[in-house]
Amino acid sequence: MPSDDYFGGYSRTDIHAEMIGDQTRTRAYRRAIFETPELFEGKVVLDVGCGTGILSLFAAEAGAKHVYAVEASDMAEVARQVVEDNGLSSVITVLKGSLEDLIPPQKVDVIISEWMGYALLFEGMMQSVLVARDHWMKEGGTLVPKRARLYACAVEDFEVEAKRFAWWDSVYGFDMAAVADHSRHEPLVDTVDPHALVTDSAIIADIDLHTVGLDDNEHFADVELIALRTETVHAILLWFDVDLTNEVVLSTSPLDVPTHWKQTLFYLPNPLKVNRGDAIRLQISIAPTPHSPRGLDIQIDVAANGRERSSSYRM
Amino acid sequence: MPSDDYFGGYSRTDIHAEMIGDQTRTRAYRRAIFETPELFEGKVVLDVGCGTGILSLFAAEAGAKHVYAVEASDMAEVARQVVEDNGLSSVITVLKGSLEDLIPPQKVDVIISEWMGYALLFEGMMQSVLVARDHWMKEGGTLVPKRARLYACAVEDFEVEAKRFAWWDSVYGFDMAAVADHSRHEPLVDTVDPHALVTDSAIIADIDLHTVGLDDNEHFADVELIALRTETVHAILLWFDVDLTNEVVLSTSPLDVPTHWKQTLFYLPNPLKVNRGDAIRLQISIAPTPHSPRGLDIQIDVAANGRERSSSYRM
Repeated sequence: MPSDDYFGGYSRTDIHAEMIGDQTRTRAYRRAIFETPELFEGKVVLDVGCGTGILSLFAAEAGAKHVYAVEASDMAEVARQVVEDNGLSSVITVLKGSLEDLIPPQKVDVIISEWMGYALLFEGMMQSVLVARDHWMKEGGTLVPKRARLYACAVEDFEVEAKRFAWWDSVYGFDMAAVADHSRHEPLVDTVDPHALVTDSAIIADIDLHTVGLDDNEHFADVELIALRTETVHAILLWFDVDLTNEVVLSTSPLDVPTHWKQTLFYLPNPLKVNRGDAIRLQISIAPTPHSPRGLDIQIDVAANGRERSSSYRM
Repeated sequence: MPSDDYFGGYSRTDIHAEMIGDQTRTRAYRRAIFETPELFEGKVVLDVGCGTGILSLFAAEAGAKHVYAVEASDMAEVARQVVEDNGLSSVITVLKGSLEDLIPPQKVDVIISEWMGYALLFEGMMQSVLVARDHWMKEGGTLVPKRARLYACAVEDFEVEAKRFAWWDSVYGFDMAAVADHSRHEPLVDTVDPHALVTDSAIIADIDLHTVGLDDNEHFADVELIALRTETVHAILLWFDVDLTNEVVLSTSPLDVPTHWKQTLFYLPNPLKVNRGDAIRLQISIAPTPHSPRGLDIQIDVAANGRERSSSYRM
C-alpha cells in the first residue's frame, strides 16, 4: 500500500474523475454547501487542496463572497482555467503552492477541504488543514468537515487468505510463502461485504478539527469488540466517517454505499477463532511514518480467550 | 500516468503477484530459460531487479553455477528468505542495492532481467541493464532479453472519447472541459480491442541490447501508416515485444494475449478522419523526462490528407 506507481490504467487526471464520480463523496459535500447557505453566503472561503476546483465551484455557486482555492500540484493551472471558463474568476482565486508556504491574502470565514485518505489518516493531509485553521481562519470560523471518526471491527476473510496469501505457497513449484509473510504487514484497501463482519465496532479516534492540536498526530485506542457469531477472525477492518456540517455525514462504513476510499484491512499474522459473545481486546496505535509524514505506521494487538495476535503495518 | 500513489487496491507486494501471475510474461521467461539450457547450465548469471526472485529461481533450477540477484527495494530481504526456504542459498546470492552502486563479485556469463515498462521505456530500467552489461558481463556474454522493438499504429476509440474526455463537459453543471484538455497530454495504459486498430503498424524503435549505447536513450521515428479502413483516428497506440532468446518472443501486441503491460494510448488533440488506403505520416520522439529519468516525454505529430495533429505527452 499504496499502489505502486507502476501499475493501474488510470492517469493522474482520471483520479480526479474517480473522486468527483464518487457520488457519495461529491454529493455529500454539495449537500453540506447548499443545505447550509448561511455558512457560505457572503463569506470568504478557503478550499485546501482544491484539485480540479469542484468544491470551490460549489462554494461560489452557493454565494460565497470570495473563494481561495489552494492546490500544490500542476492541477492548479487547470483549476484556474476551469474557473475562468465558468466566468467565476472574480469570485475564485486559485493559488498554486503548498498551504504551508502561502501567505493568506485575507483571513477566511470557512475552510473546506476534502483531505481524507485511506483509513482517514493516510497521506497526512489533515495537518495542512490544521495549518490553514491556525493561520488563515478568523476567530470563530468554521471547518468543513468539522469532525472525523475512525472505526474498527474484526472481519473474516477466507477468500483473501486463500488468494492473497496461500497463493505464494507454491509458485511454479517454489515455496514463496516469505512473500506472503511480508505482505501481511501491508494494509489492503478493499470493499468488505457486510456479511464478513465478525464483531461490533468501536471508535478508535474521534477528532474535533476545530480543537485538535497541530501536533496531535498520534492515536492510540484500547477497546473491546464483541463477537456477534462464532467465526474465524482474519483481519481488523478500519473505516471512517466525517461530519461535514451538523447535518451532513460522509460515511465510508462497510454498511454504507461503497466509496473510492473503500475500507482498509489489516491481516493478522494468524487467524484467531472466536466464539459468539467473546470480548476481543483490540489495542491499536497509529503514527506518521518517521521521515515520511504521508505514510502511517500502525501497531495492532488483538487478544481473545487467552490467545494473542500482534503485528505492525506500514502504509 | 502512472496511477497516483493514492488509488488502487493493490499493495506493493500484490504487484509482484500480478507480475508473476501474468502468465504470458512469466511463462515466456521460464521457456527462455528452460528451452536454452546451454545458456544457463554451469554459468554465472546476474538477475537485474530481481523482485521476489522468481527469475533467479528459474535460472538456478536450470543449472546455473551461481546467480547474483540484485534488488534495490526492501523486497531484497524477502527474496533472500525465499532463496533460503528453497535450499538455494549456495547457488543464489541476493544483493540489496542499486546495480549502479554495487561492485560485481565476479563477471557473469548471462544477464537476465525483466526491465520493461509501459510503452517499453517507462521507468527507465533498461539503463540499469546496460550498466550491468558494461560492468558485470564477460566479453561475449548473453543478455536476456537480447532485443526490444517498439511499435505504433493508429486506433479509433469513441468509447474513451466519450467516457474519459466528454465526461468533463458538464460536471454538476460546470464546464470542466479544461480538465479533459489537460488529460489528453497523459498517456493511458489500457487493453485495446483488435477491432479498434485503424492502420497497419510500424516499428518505431528497434534496440539491440548487446550493442545499444548507454546514452542512446532518445528515440525518433518518421514512419508511414496505411489506413486499413475509412475511420476516425482518436489515438496513436504503442506496444512492444522483446526477443528473450532466439527462440522466445514476449509480445504485448493488441493481437496477442493481454499482459499486465496492456498497451499505451496517446490521444490526439482532435480526432482525424482517414480514408481506406490513406498514408498517415507519424513522427514520434521519445526521451527521458529532464531531471526525472524514470519518466518519459513524448512528442507525436500525425499528418494525413493535408491535416495535422500534434501533441506532447508526459508519462
